[in-house]
Amino acid sequence: MPKMKVAIFVEPGRIVLDEKPIPDVGPLDALLRITTTTICGTDVHILKGEYPVARGLTIGHEPVGVIEKLGSAVQGYREGQRVIAGAITPSGHSAACLCGCHSQDGAGTKHGWKPLGGWRFGNTIDGCQAEYVLVPDAMANLAPVPDGLTDEQVLMCPDIMSTGFSGAESGRIRIGDTVAVFAQGPIGLCATAGARLMGASTIIAVESVPERMEVARRMGADHVVDFTKGDPVEEIRRLTDGRGVDVSIEALGRQETFEASLRVLRPGGTLSSLGVYSGDLRIPLDGFMAGLGDHTIRTTLCPGGKERMRRLMEVVASGRVDTRPLVTHRFKLDQIEEAYDLFAHQRDGVLKVAITP
Amino acid sequence: MPKMKVAIFVEPGRIVLDEKPIPDVGPLDALLRITTTTICGTDVHILKGEYPVARGLTIGHEPVGVIEKLGSAVQGYREGQRVIAGAITPSGHSAACLCGCHSQDGAGTKHGWKPLGGWRFGNTIDGCQAEYVLVPDAMANLAPVPDGLTDEQVLMCPDIMSTGFSGAESGRIRIGDTVAVFAQGPIGLCATAGARLMGASTIIAVESVPERMEVARRMGADHVVDFTKGDPVEEIRRLTDGRGVDVSIEALGRQETFEASLRVLRPGGTLSSLGVYSGDLRIPLDGFMAGLGDHTIRTTLCPGGKERMRRLMEVVASGRVDTRPLVTHRFKLDQIEEAYDLFAHQRDGVLKVAITP
Amino acid sequence: MPKMKVAIFVEPGRIVLDEKPIPDVGPLDALLRITTTTICGTDVHILKGEYPVARGLTIGHEPVGVIEKLGSAVQGYREGQRVIAGAITPSGHSAACLCGCHSQDGAGTKHGWKPLGGWRFGNTIDGCQAEYVLVPDAMANLAPVPDGLTDEQVLMCPDIMSTGFSGAESGRIRIGDTVAVFAQGPIGLCATAGARLMGASTIIAVESVPERMEVARRMGADHVVDFTKGDPVEEIRRLTDGRGVDVSIEALGRQETFEASLRVLRPGGTLSSLGVYSGDLRIPLDGFMAGLGDHTIRTTLCPGGKERMRRLMEVVASGRVDTRPLVTHRFKLDQIEEAYDLFAHQRDGVLKVAITP
Amino acid sequence: MPKMKVAIFVEPGRIVLDEKPIPDVGPLDALLRITTTTICGTDVHILKGEYPVARGLTIGHEPVGVIEKLGSAVQGYREGQRVIAGAITPSGHSAACLCGCHSQDGAGTKHGWKPLGGWRFGNTIDGCQAEYVLVPDAMANLAPVPDGLTDEQVLMCPDIMSTGFSGAESGRIRIGDTVAVFAQGPIGLCATAGARLMGASTIIAVESVPERMEVARRMGADHVVDFTKGDPVEEIRRLTDGRGVDVSIEALGRQETFEASLRVLRPGGTLSSLGVYSGDLRIPLDGFMAGLGDHTIRTTLCPGGKERMRRLMEVVASGRVDTRPLVTHRFKLDQIEEAYDLFAHQRDGVLKVAITP
Repeated sequence: MPKMKVAIFVEPGRIVLDEKPIPDVGPLDALLRITTTTICGTDVHILKGEYPVARGLTIGHEPVGVIEKLGSAVQGYREGQRVIAGAITPSGHSAACLCGCHSQDGAGTKHGWKPLGGWRFGNTIDGCQAEYVLVPDAMANLAPVPDGLTDEQVLMCPDIMSTGFSGAESGRIRIGDTVAVFAQGPIGLCATAGARLMGASTIIAVESVPERMEVARRMGADHVVDFTKGDPVEEIRRLTDGRGVDVSIEALGRQETFEASLRVLRPGGTLSSLGVYSGDLRIPLDGFMAGLGDHTIRTTLCPGGKERMRRLMEVVASGRVDTRPLVTHRFKLDQIEEAYDLFAHQRDGVLKVAITP
Repeated sequence: MPKMKVAIFVEPGRIVLDEKPIPDVGPLDALLRITTTTICGTDVHILKGEYPVARGLTIGHEPVGVIEKLGSAVQGYREGQRVIAGAITPSGHSAACLCGCHSQDGAGTKHGWKPLGGWRFGNTIDGCQAEYVLVPDAMANLAPVPDGLTDEQVLMCPDIMSTGFSGAESGRIRIGDTVAVFAQGPIGLCATAGARLMGASTIIAVESVPERMEVARRMGADHVVDFTKGDPVEEIRRLTDGRGVDVSIEALGRQETFEASLRVLRPGGTLSSLGVYSGDLRIPLDGFMAGLGDHTIRTTLCPGGKERMRRLMEVVASGRVDTRPLVTHRFKLDQIEEAYDLFAHQRDGVLKVAITP
Repeated sequence: MPKMKVAIFVEPGRIVLDEKPIPDVGPLDALLRITTTTICGTDVHILKGEYPVARGLTIGHEPVGVIEKLGSAVQGYREGQRVIAGAITPSGHSAACLCGCHSQDGAGTKHGWKPLGGWRFGNTIDGCQAEYVLVPDAMANLAPVPDGLTDEQVLMCPDIMSTGFSGAESGRIRIGDTVAVFAQGPIGLCATAGARLMGASTIIAVESVPERMEVARRMGADHVVDFTKGDPVEEIRRLTDGRGVDVSIEALGRQETFEASLRVLRPGGTLSSLGVYSGDLRIPLDGFMAGLGDHTIRTTLCPGGKERMRRLMEVVASGRVDTRPLVTHRFKLDQIEEAYDLFAHQRDGVLKVAITP
Repeated sequence: MPKMKVAIFVEPGRIVLDEKPIPDVGPLDALLRITTTTICGTDVHILKGEYPVARGLTIGHEPVGVIEKLGSAVQGYREGQRVIAGAITPSGHSAACLCGCHSQDGAGTKHGWKPLGGWRFGNTIDGCQAEYVLVPDAMANLAPVPDGLTDEQVLMCPDIMSTGFSGAESGRIRIGDTVAVFAQGPIGLCATAGARLMGASTIIAVESVPERMEVARRMGADHVVDFTKGDPVEEIRRLTDGRGVDVSIEALGRQETFEASLRVLRPGGTLSSLGVYSGDLRIPLDGFMAGLGDHTIRTTLCPGGKERMRRLMEVVASGRVDTRPLVTHRFKLDQIEEAYDLFAHQRDGVLKVAITP
């Protein structure tokens, strides 16, 4: 049985390079040979033991690759085809999927809903930081890469761009809106790009790392507020002349940013939350206008499925958004531990790393 | 200058009957002779000093009456006509109104948005617990009462029914949904009726007062859970066979009900919040699925304006919903202090009182 | 190879009882033993040659039955279970499905969209007027029947109720709307019930057959306009005091009703079209307000999939809607030709027939 | 009584320069001194007698100016302020306005809805091709021009940009959509810009005039199809590799473009219609998929009101869209007849003219 290199979770603090057998391909699966993948902030949560996964699981949920083998029932693809799959790989047939809520896919459960159920790679099944990965429900999930796009051009699609854009989409941004985006890590940067793409006329990004502030401007921010130099809520009030913003996007996952996102809203505004929180949240009475402010708070888990991926790659192909500035470092799969070390400690201005087996 | 009787806020703990001059009628106003009004839970907040208003303000925001006098610029009405006005009286011309967010009407402010700005009666201008009330922006707010409907039949429209129904509407209830409604006071009962009206196939009401539990069933609840007999979250999980609800409506304004409303949701569900909260709220990490559950939390302030009132009265006229069981006690305006005493202490199975000058 | 009785299309004018082998069960299929099915207006179009299908195809798309055999990859069901499937049987994994547009499922096509592609039973694959039917993509389509519901209680769910309700849903009916429904055949009657279920306060049904007018009232119509006794557009204008309706539902598929549906709308209103048209349609300039009336015209093909079916059966189980009055005649499968004869000629007050193998 | 110069409609074929008294200012009005205005395609319809208005009416509905005098009840503005008003001037207080359907404002009518009722300038009241214009319901309609924007930069906001963008908005364009825009006159060009602004990844414009084809590319079109060189439906099918478009925008008002807009849609797509039609329209059976294609057809009349204007000017100020290339010719008000002659005959590559009193 041939083997492949994989990055597995061993215990909190340890993700290591190891070997596993290349998996068998079930009738609805596809085996992908990974050509490029990356590390996500969520993987760092796993590394730190903040998000629990099974010991020995292969980590990673952002695959770019080539179809090595198709399951017997999979139609519409050919081996050798360049494809990506989303971080979320919905079955398509659960109650959640049939309601359009693919990320909460409960295939196999009694009622068809499961919290975060669509997230399988590197969570409930082996992931993509490996030489090969098995894509479940391949017909719902494999998206061919358009000719002319490089691996690195589409590497943000499976998670970062899909999640970031969803922050703008769930905020229901309209032409002429004023939008604040809290934190300009990779997802926040894509939220900024998404807000720009949906027609926001003023985008205020909040960040303090100079490199990220600079990329924020390139992604579409009109103003970048450095929260270390003053209260960002006050600064956003000032920039909007006291009006507040129509939509705010939380892209960090902390109490401070969640709360600030609420406080900068005009009455009737929407807080679109992308952060992964690690504790209870507090809603301040005044920011919530005692529950009478006609607010909407909406959380979104990365939209997946092949059609989402197709659409995002169309955006890349059109040149509307270029996420290549987000790939700041490159490693071989053999160097994955080194890559985690750099990425987890946010050293050297890292935004995202590209990993090539 | 002729005088009229009014109920005014004096200081925390004291709302008393007093006299004021009948006000002058500006060009856009209408003077209403009140024929029936009522006391709202919010008025009790005012009484207790929990919601601040100016001393000497006439309280009350739920008017049924007859047009006594029209402002010089008001067209489309005639004196003597029976009308209601909503608790919220939008101007129609602020930025908020032009965005369809009439409750946050900021007419007269710099940007046109003001938290709760559409709520004027008994909040920022003299209210309806009086012999007469001045309705501002009359052309946006006066809604003629259809022939054949009594005062008591439309008395819930200005606030209770509008707010309660909005709980169902903001929850975006769809045919076949399962819905939980927390608390069956007057607003919760109308939320139950609204959920029924929008096609929910299973409605689970949470309450413990026997009279309210009984009315809940009449308003459309399929199940009524007594929260004093066990954890309502567990009971709702049991009733839904572990699935959870599509939409939950919070109609009380407390941490326990807010939190329970979140916990009973299936992934991707909506919490529609109607409560007036009096402190910070806590979002439990697990109920919020760490921010990854595709949840929506939406708050709604009572929709107002004459068209809303017309539509609600149409519902009453159609016989689809009958709110008369909510009027449990009747008082003359002269007895308003007694009415407050009964209502504030929730004595004698009171749901709503009718006050007639 | 065991045989089963089936009703097949032979040529325009001839649908006959015949025999076919019981089909093999592929890995994603389920074989259903039909216990009750029915004839649809669309089947009559097929019979008349107005809608083309392959000669020899088994007709029918409304199955109630028992799982006889499950495909090797099908999980979450057991043989012997009572189930229904929708008239539309989406794959769940096409681009259309991933966009929530399951009826236009293009599984197997280049782009994943195919006009009417989700409609397979009795259209592109063998249908349900048979002793057995093969359900494709079983995990997306089999919906267990709740205990206590009879076959006839759920017989309208696969098509009639799903289509009828969708007329109200696509019309985006809101609490307090005034709605007109043109034609009260089975689908129009369910559109009336759907409008009622969504909170319309005034429902005006248009029909001329006395039995149907009577059932229309039972399904929720407030007014029933007999179009043979005067122009229904004028009558609806009169009933709405000149205002027009917020939403009109076309449930017949003719120029007259399409045009009348447009003419009765208030500005900004929505025409929700359910009809299957057999020729070009004309939009009258005045009814369309020269293209400046902020109108919406929306067509809807019967929503399918197991979650839709589950929700509809929940509505039936709740007692909110009872479609049993629609089943006016009963036949054995052996009498299918007789059943077609009665149904196609609309004799004897027939609304829907129940066919039992 | 001081006089002012105005352009009035005399009879079909004749719009001439004339004089009228400067009007009195009612309590809710504002008198604007026009600094720049323009001629709309609709004005040409009026000129030709295709759209009827009263003889002697001052034409024009696109004002940029300075507040000369405010009505006694108007608050929040000061004389001398630079402002624009939309082509549509809603009252804010009619039933239509309270439903968010401001263009169909029926202020003063029995039910509060009137087809095209929000369009008053140059239609039911004197318009803007004049030295002065009276703006009704000033508080709902006057939008201050941000510092630093010239008259010509905001001249497209009152109608052209508002209408054009609404084509994209009513099409509910989403990130990654493919969109076709039929005709690239001023409104079609703004629809193209709007589609770009909302995140369409592929925009296909249809036009044949070289200058317009060129501007279309500058406004965001990825492809420009010359309909004189082949069937645009076939060409769009080819460009989309047979898939069709998600949204098509009709921006001309003819049967050919309406029909083509429908034919290029994928199933489930939306036709957003902006054209002013002058005859009945035909919906082709096949393009409509017999009424079963899950299509939406939506018409939109130019959104107005001060908040819409504010938002559009924010877009201009942000530099996201620059409509200055649309102003190709400049005239003094004294030359208005000459301007009409050029514009009506589409001579000399004219897109829009700027008229300055």
